[in-house]
Amino acid sequence: MIIIGEKINGAIPSVAKAIAEKNEDWIRDLAIRQTDGGADFIDVCSSVVDKDVETLKWLIDLVQGVCDTKICIDSPSAANCVAAIPFCKKPGLINSVSLEGDKIETVFPAIADTKWECVALLCDSNKIPDGVQERIDIFERLMVKAKEYNIAPSRLHIDPLVFSVGTKPEAFTGFAAVTKYIREAYPDIHITSGLSNISFGIPSRKTMNMAFLTIARYLGMDSAIMDPTSRDMLGAMYATEVLMEEDEYCVEYMDAYNEDKFGVQKK
Amino acid sequence: MIIIGEKINGAIPSVAKAIAEKNEDWIRDLAIRQTDGGADFIDVCSSVVDKDVETLKWLIDLVQGVCDTKICIDSPSAANCVAAIPFCKKPGLINSVSLEGDKIETVFPAIADTKWECVALLCDSNKIPDGVQERIDIFERLMVKAKEYNIAPSRLHIDPLVFSVGTKPEAFTGFAAVTKYIREAYPDIHITSGLSNISFGIPSRKTMNMAFLTIARYLGMDSAIMDPTSRDMLGAMYATEVLMEEDEYCVEYMDAYNEDKFGVQKK
Repeated sequence: MIIIGEKINGAIPSVAKAIAEKNEDWIRDLAIRQTDGGADFIDVCSSVVDKDVETLKWLIDLVQGVCDTKICIDSPSAANCVAAIPFCKKPGLINSVSLEGDKIETVFPAIADTKWECVALLCDSNKIPDGVQERIDIFERLMVKAKEYNIAPSRLHIDPLVFSVGTKPEAFTGFAAVTKYIREAYPDIHITSGLSNISFGIPSRKTMNMAFLTIARYLGMDSAIMDPTSRDMLGAMYATEVLMEEDEYCVEYMDAYNEDKFGVQKK
Repeated sequence: MIIIGEKINGAIPSVAKAIAEKNEDWIRDLAIRQTDGGADFIDVCSSVVDKDVETLKWLIDLVQGVCDTKICIDSPSAANCVAAIPFCKKPGLINSVSLEGDKIETVFPAIADTKWECVALLCDSNKIPDGVQERIDIFERLMVKAKEYNIAPSRLHIDPLVFSVGTKPEAFTGFAAVTKYIREAYPDIHITSGLSNISFGIPSRKTMNMAFLTIARYLGMDSAIMDPTSRDMLGAMYATEVLMEEDEYCVEYMDAYNEDKFGVQKK
């Protein structure tokens, strides 16, 4: 599975503090720990509205100074995402576009002839769609745009949107239905999610996040914006890949266990 | 989900010792803790070959002395299972029959006109079948027998057999395929498993058992022979039932959490 490490995000109070205080070691440590946990991309989100691009550059430089994990540029502003592309040493991931406003028209031309990948949320300017058919309709419109800009499905990480089961009982079954549709239509596309949304507002969030990761992975989600320093989440991921025959004879499971990435901590 | 508490089993060394030493409090404690964890049935298995029925009676009396949880009579001898029925105050579960030998002809007539339920393994006298179609064929033959003896599907707990992913990469996908077939054919039947077999011979077994429980539950397994005193297993179960819309608005999840059944221990 493709892991997009979520921990360098200015919306998290401790990270906001590190950004405000220019605490470089704090950011570097988060980059190293996520890389050690197996992150394929390290998400960087400043949450500093007035100095977003400048802060993204600072974060990207710090991450690239300690590891060569690919960068996931994360900003609510598509223009700022594009502005941060030149700071990256190699192609990474843009987080995110959707059919809202001119996001696609801003990002897709900028990455059209590159190896950059892109997270695409299944929403548009009208509203956050929680119905299955609404999301499938948006997905189909999005794929027309991707084809127009020559973005191959394998460069897209589709996020079918995750709502909280605390307020929407059908949060997961809806996600599962959209995932199933997309996986069957495009075997090579990536399906991702900001999976911890599933447990917003309920206790023992990790319990719910692990169950979400396990079933969603089994149903075809092959990418996730998650915490790669969580031993329990990693364990759920490795075990699920064994069960779905993506890790025959537990080779990767055993390697990760021997590297002390999950299970009872050895050291 | 229907939980069949697995802990009173003479194959477990500490239980074998308690049986040998007639340690009544040890057995009573296991019965109480499994009941508190939410067991619907308490499995009793003596593993004392020469005094199986006598030992089953001793175990059943002890369990019934401290709780009114239903008994699951567990013996490799179908005749001994039937012999233990009169020791039970109310109808419970027989563990197990299969198409091997005369198991069905021994058990089904004895429970035909009762409310007793029965675990049925998908194997016969020939061999342990690990192919999907072989198990489906045995299932169909088993259902012919059940109809003959007027055992309603809702009284059967079908065990599609669980092999270790350490030696059979298709252990889970095969289980899933059989489960899907049975669930679609008989919506009211129970599907169960001795799920911890999935992790035999691999490290961090609980990690694999949790992933198994989560996905199998999602795919239609609604019964399990498991440890109801495991906080992690209970958490996986409650979370999964929320995700599959069997616990809308997290009512049961919240109750179990508030009763300190899973999550970070409160006391």
